[in-house]
Amino acid sequence: MNSQSFTVLSPDEIEIAYNRISKYIHRTPLISSSILNNILHHEILFKVESMQKIGAFKIRGALNVLTALQNALPKKIVTFSSGNHAQAVAYAGKMLNVKTTIILPSFTSPIKQQATKYYGAEVINTLTRKEAEEKTAEIAAKGAFFIHPFDNDGVIAGQGTSCYEALKDGADPDAIFATCGGGGWLSGTFLAKELLSPKSKVFGVEPLQANDATQSYHAKKIIKFCDSPPTIADGARAPAVSKRTFHYLKQLDGFYEVSENEIIYWTQWLMHLLKITVEPTSAVAMAGAFQWLKTQKTKQRVLVLLSGGNIAPETYQNIWKESFLEKIPSLK
Amino acid sequence: MNSQSFTVLSPDEIEIAYNRISKYIHRTPLISSSILNNILHHEILFKVESMQKIGAFKIRGALNVLTALQNALPKKIVTFSSGNHAQAVAYAGKMLNVKTTIILPSFTSPIKQQATKYYGAEVINTLTRKEAEEKTAEIAAKGAFFIHPFDNDGVIAGQGTSCYEALKDGADPDAIFATCGGGGWLSGTFLAKELLSPKSKVFGVEPLQANDATQSYHAKKIIKFCDSPPTIADGARAPAVSKRTFHYLKQLDGFYEVSENEIIYWTQWLMHLLKITVEPTSAVAMAGAFQWLKTQKTKQRVLVLLSGGNIAPETYQNIWKESFLEKIPSLK
Repeated sequence: MNSQSFTVLSPDEIEIAYNRISKYIHRTPLISSSILNNILHHEILFKVESMQKIGAFKIRGALNVLTALQNALPKKIVTFSSGNHAQAVAYAGKMLNVKTTIILPSFTSPIKQQATKYYGAEVINTLTRKEAEEKTAEIAAKGAFFIHPFDNDGVIAGQGTSCYEALKDGADPDAIFATCGGGGWLSGTFLAKELLSPKSKVFGVEPLQANDATQSYHAKKIIKFCDSPPTIADGARAPAVSKRTFHYLKQLDGFYEVSENEIIYWTQWLMHLLKITVEPTSAVAMAGAFQWLKTQKTKQRVLVLLSGGNIAPETYQNIWKESFLEKIPSLK
Repeated sequence: MNSQSFTVLSPDEIEIAYNRISKYIHRTPLISSSILNNILHHEILFKVESMQKIGAFKIRGALNVLTALQNALPKKIVTFSSGNHAQAVAYAGKMLNVKTTIILPSFTSPIKQQATKYYGAEVINTLTRKEAEEKTAEIAAKGAFFIHPFDNDGVIAGQGTSCYEALKDGADPDAIFATCGGGGWLSGTFLAKELLSPKSKVFGVEPLQANDATQSYHAKKIIKFCDSPPTIADGARAPAVSKRTFHYLKQLDGFYEVSENEIIYWTQWLMHLLKITVEPTSAVAMAGAFQWLKTQKTKQRVLVLLSGGNIAPETYQNIWKESFLEKIPSLK
């Protein structure tokens, strides 16, 4: 279902997207933890997308696609997703009064399914991610407007507005870290920093168990998993990036891979330090930033984009099975 | 150790306290959940003290006591606490450059102990709450300045500033709910509403298993537990209110008692809806508000004061042992 040809976006598209969607969404806070900064001797800024509508950055992309259509809104939208994109499309549809059908693989957490239905979407379950894509294509073929979770220029530009806001709010980072799923967020982030802070480095971070983008980055060609790889970071389970997102991803300054334990460690610590709910997908980015900081000899200013705060009960159980809070983060 | 005679505070004291401490602390956000308001058909506003320094409202009282002393700061401070007050005094001491010794009952969560030490306090452990009080008295007798967790006018006035801020920020509530530990927060809250919104009702809420204040309220005299009662809401474990706080508590509009399951239910739901960490002690207040709303026939505007977001790993495990998120809140 991924496109074969695509447009290369100009960094200006992020500003255009921001001006289009800003009145519908929250300008999420940029926060830091003085305890963490003291421990690490670096300055870490967190862009808190859990405070965004639907509890995740994904609403930005969906809204940007729909608001761009303005007077030619479709009658029906369809998409597939294992989580936050589903809620984003459902909520954007509700806001703009468009019917939505969301195809969810059955492993999607019941809470995310419930929220998607709460926003008024029709939900159809499939067994696998692949079947979800196929079912979506089938409904789209009948005339529904399809919003891909990441392989869409409007989505990419919309997702870039979170980094755009952080840079406008004075983040001024040496390096920016974001988690890589299908690469839409990172593509938009790359464009935002090209627009406002070209000297900043941008790094992608993936769970080791879902490292298709990292492999692709190093191989200089797209490597695909057959189906969603298992990881507690459910937002990073896209089995492959697209040609469109890979165009931006290959221009990044690097990729980091983090273990499930590192993800859980930082999920616990970020909740402990920041007092916000941090979904494991968000903690992936911090775990990568921490690896990078280990290689740095001078004080760095880092922007960590936290994707969202939607955590299923069973994920909470997995996060807190064992406590890592006794082990204070140390770069030594 | 509780005082026998005490001053009756004028509501103006809350404003004086606010003017003294506001430059040191955060003006915490007042937020709401459109999903929750839609489900309940009422308007619920949450004052989010987990976003306060040390992750809880308690810093307000400790800072108010110390800043009032200004040019006559003590050389050493001592206090006892099962949690947030310990961190509050340690942090206030650090800010104003005063040495602190904190006596913690050994059941205090290791994370709260760690944070207290992190803020530079000397920590002494005792087996029980009673022993902690005795040890504190012993050190105070040797000349250390003692800040009681609630039986102190400066603490009461300081704690009242969170409700004061919410009312200044336009909360305009029909009813205000806060959790009752020793009653300092509720006393300050009562004074704040007397100052800015006399028509608002104020209710205290307690865990059923720690209902000494509720019993006292109905008996019109102070009923004491022998030691800290067991409840997941560790901030509500004070075994008795003081004469000083009871003076204000008996003027409240009522008390609600909530079960451990109701506390866990609302801890889960508030984290799910608000995307902030909600310590069970905070959820107690919402559980009480929910009971009250069940008795209301017209649409109400409710202010729920959320005490903080400091949650120990073992408490997280207890909170998420069983999921209540499938059971949507319903007033019917």
